[in-house]
Amino acid sequence: MNTLKIVPLGGMGGVTQNMFLYEMDQEILIIDCGIGFPDHYMPGADILIPDISYLLKKIEQGKTVVGMVLSHGHDDHIGALAYLLPALPEFPIYASPLTAGFAEDRMKESQAKRTVNVVDHSNEFTLGGFTIQLFAVTHSVPDTRHILVTCEAGTFYHGSDYKLDPAPVDGILTDIRGITEAAENGITCMLLDCLRVENPNWVPSESTVGPVLSDIMMKTEGKYVITLMSSHLHRIQQVVDAAVAQGRKVAFIGRSVEQNIEVALRLNKITIPAGVMVDKRKLSNYADKQLCVIVAGSQGQEGSSLVRAIFGEHRALRISPNDTVVFSADAIPGNELPYYAAIDELCRNRIHVVYPAIQDGLHQSGHASAPEQQEMVRTLNPTYLFPMGGADRHRVLFLEKVAEPLGYNEQSVLIPEKGEILEFGLGAPRTAEKIILKPQIVDGLGVGDVGPIVLSDRRAMGESGIIVLVIPRHNDEFLLDQIEIVSRGFVFMKEAEEVINFIHESTIETIEKFGKKSDEILRKEIEKRLARKLFSIIRREPMIVPVIIDR
Amino acid sequence: MNTLKIVPLGGMGGVTQNMFLYEMDQEILIIDCGIGFPDHYMPGADILIPDISYLLKKIEQGKTVVGMVLSHGHDDHIGALAYLLPALPEFPIYASPLTAGFAEDRMKESQAKRTVNVVDHSNEFTLGGFTIQLFAVTHSVPDTRHILVTCEAGTFYHGSDYKLDPAPVDGILTDIRGITEAAENGITCMLLDCLRVENPNWVPSESTVGPVLSDIMMKTEGKYVITLMSSHLHRIQQVVDAAVAQGRKVAFIGRSVEQNIEVALRLNKITIPAGVMVDKRKLSNYADKQLCVIVAGSQGQEGSSLVRAIFGEHRALRISPNDTVVFSADAIPGNELPYYAAIDELCRNRIHVVYPAIQDGLHQSGHASAPEQQEMVRTLNPTYLFPMGGADRHRVLFLEKVAEPLGYNEQSVLIPEKGEILEFGLGAPRTAEKIILKPQIVDGLGVGDVGPIVLSDRRAMGESGIIVLVIPRHNDEFLLDQIEIVSRGFVFMKEAEEVINFIHESTIETIEKFGKKSDEILRKEIEKRLARKLFSIIRREPMIVPVIIDR
Repeated sequence: MNTLKIVPLGGMGGVTQNMFLYEMDQEILIIDCGIGFPDHYMPGADILIPDISYLLKKIEQGKTVVGMVLSHGHDDHIGALAYLLPALPEFPIYASPLTAGFAEDRMKESQAKRTVNVVDHSNEFTLGGFTIQLFAVTHSVPDTRHILVTCEAGTFYHGSDYKLDPAPVDGILTDIRGITEAAENGITCMLLDCLRVENPNWVPSESTVGPVLSDIMMKTEGKYVITLMSSHLHRIQQVVDAAVAQGRKVAFIGRSVEQNIEVALRLNKITIPAGVMVDKRKLSNYADKQLCVIVAGSQGQEGSSLVRAIFGEHRALRISPNDTVVFSADAIPGNELPYYAAIDELCRNRIHVVYPAIQDGLHQSGHASAPEQQEMVRTLNPTYLFPMGGADRHRVLFLEKVAEPLGYNEQSVLIPEKGEILEFGLGAPRTAEKIILKPQIVDGLGVGDVGPIVLSDRRAMGESGIIVLVIPRHNDEFLLDQIEIVSRGFVFMKEAEEVINFIHESTIETIEKFGKKSDEILRKEIEKRLARKLFSIIRREPMIVPVIIDR
Repeated sequence: MNTLKIVPLGGMGGVTQNMFLYEMDQEILIIDCGIGFPDHYMPGADILIPDISYLLKKIEQGKTVVGMVLSHGHDDHIGALAYLLPALPEFPIYASPLTAGFAEDRMKESQAKRTVNVVDHSNEFTLGGFTIQLFAVTHSVPDTRHILVTCEAGTFYHGSDYKLDPAPVDGILTDIRGITEAAENGITCMLLDCLRVENPNWVPSESTVGPVLSDIMMKTEGKYVITLMSSHLHRIQQVVDAAVAQGRKVAFIGRSVEQNIEVALRLNKITIPAGVMVDKRKLSNYADKQLCVIVAGSQGQEGSSLVRAIFGEHRALRISPNDTVVFSADAIPGNELPYYAAIDELCRNRIHVVYPAIQDGLHQSGHASAPEQQEMVRTLNPTYLFPMGGADRHRVLFLEKVAEPLGYNEQSVLIPEKGEILEFGLGAPRTAEKIILKPQIVDGLGVGDVGPIVLSDRRAMGESGIIVLVIPRHNDEFLLDQIEIVSRGFVFMKEAEEVINFIHESTIETIEKFGKKSDEILRKEIEKRLARKLFSIIRREPMIVPVIIDR
């Protein structure tokens, strides 16, 4: 019998960068291909993508990628397609209709232009030795699926992002019955979204948000400006419905929301009656009271349409004191500063702004809480559990709060470390291997040329600046009176003659002592001595770069 | 009659850097002298201090500082003393006992060694033309006071940080009756802490936290390790009481908490029975079950004692799987990443950790919620209101949620912009002047030499690195084959020959075109052209620094 290895290329212990290999003998199935978001330890990085070195090595060794299945249309599950597919051989890709639409849209402007095959909910299909079935689940983007994978090593339930919405906006409930029937022979291992395990309460239905947003619209005298996650079509549908009911036109502003709406309209995933949608460039043709504007930038991102409008720098959208601005999204943890800076600026200009900290019900999470996770586990009763999509604390809490009360234990709840590959089919799952996953950074248009040294240099310079010492030499003689000191981000040099003299003297002193040694030793000594002195005097640690110029 | 100007030197619209001048004819009273905390727009900055240029100018013009009064012992109210007092003339400083103790402690290692006069709660004293009375209020540090200032222009209530705790740990309630009596002739203007105006519920008493912490201690098999704000003596007292009741010894670890406990013990602001406190270096003399360790680092700060212990790098404190770690503090907004990184690391090592997201009642705010703010306003019924200590959204919300329901309006609620000075005593308060307040940055041991250019350079380099072009010249001839390219934080240069060649060529091209122009023009052109090309090719914007070396 063939074993199955599950390889999380995005690493475990993180929320984003979802990409899983299901590896069996000579065949590999890929689930999802998402980006991650850099933290403040990675300055300048735009996005992160999974490290596919392991996959490339397996392909080189002759293994076949039988296909890829995408769970849903969020960028942390499909956003890396444009970056990674060009490096990979051809294979079929499968997804639900909207996920396929979003995935193709994300690849549009890249080298990776592949067609995504649309598969219907619950229809069975095979990819090599894998039998696959997709099941509808509710989440904050329509057409989200869980994936049932059957192979020789067992039946695996890939339960990425979901919630158990009792009254979803499109009426399509999480298909518990379909899943139960399909998995009637039992599930070997259930991988399950554990992100919101800290939440002890069932998440309210997305359909509870619409009335709250509609009420605020009713009280709005001017334009109703709302910002939300651009792919949250059910939320957008509710806003559109309210606008239609209240006789407002709807405009979409911002690249992400405009693109998503285009895809959604083409695939009939949103309903906007004729004559309701208006061009963002023609807002001035309507009275403020007639307008509902849905705008990108719900995290207060610098450069987003919302932030430009708030600071009076958007050509199409001007926000005035009669308008109401609604933030229908929480701040992502760690992102509070720009989010609240946007709200503060609105308040400063006395524009009415409604946001979750002062108004209940403006937003509901798309992720299952602890009781919803427990419900899923209880219903499907898998042999092993594999919490995913959360940080380490969430995975451990899943063990304690969700699994243990149902009789699972440390042995049956799998919490692999980053890089650990679990193997199924030989009795209890075991760690087959531990691979090294390096952060793959996309910075500007470059991929992979920004490594740890570049990042740590950026951090150092970003904290304390840089001092470059240009030291000319002629016929082995250092021209000490011609040393140039260039600094950026250190102190304001025009007013710091004393510091410059000090740097100068320290450098000359070191050259006099070590000038006969190799250049490498000399450079290191200059750096070390000056760093020590600067730290002891002013407690700063600029990056120091001596450059010896021979003529 | 003399008018009174209120000058917020720390700026309005921020939470920290509290420093107010009460300026009357030839006399100035200072209230508080606090530091601020830099955001990510100020890389490398350690702390911010108020800009006292205005005050220095007034002193130069012959005005007298009659004294300074400190409201309470938090660093955003007393932390700038060490930095600012050396630049100021002698004047008396007044505070409650603990505030005086903390203030003197903060000045200990600096040039500013002044004595702080201890004033008793509600005793009246005068400083020049100001009559001053301090009243006990409840907050997250003991001995917090509100300040009543009476002068010719009226009676002013300086109501900085407080809450209305119905059952404070030390039994000392907010002295509403004393304040009402003292202000029986009416209050002209009430400045009031508005930070938690988003909270619509009365904040639970600090004394509700103790039982929660005690319960967790009861269930802890190993060491009970708790982290909290180091100045929160009432919280610490409750932990100590629980430890005593459960037969545990108490150890304090971390500079801030150790220093504060030393002051508190000296001033009898905390009660620890003999034999309970143990030296942190002797923890190994006790069984884990006998220990309660109170440790600094409740924000997961890098380098804090808690974080070092979590990562196994603390000499005195080792955390093991039987221990419980309690975070009795919320993450400060914007600080979620290090805070949760610490919690994740504990979970990864299967150490039991309790934190506010999974356990109610671990922490209660020290700031008044909207109803508590309203209670204060209703009771004292001032003519004008001046919300402070909050961001712009909090000040505007104070107007809407707290003041307007009580009959105040845009005219009677004062929301000055940053730098605006309000003048009282000539009918309605008016804006007397708007001054420019520059951020005063303490970076390492230097104050004030890190200005906006240095900061923006740091930001640029921190995002995309730096390229230094060393261009030698001899007798007006550029030595094009000897150009040196030095970069840091840009791309990993050893693998980027192509990019280096490209930079080289671009520089030579520009020199050939502009080499006859002035050095300044040449440098600007090199910079501009290379920047444009790099951005168009790889979408990155490193800082570019051409250095021309003449020999």
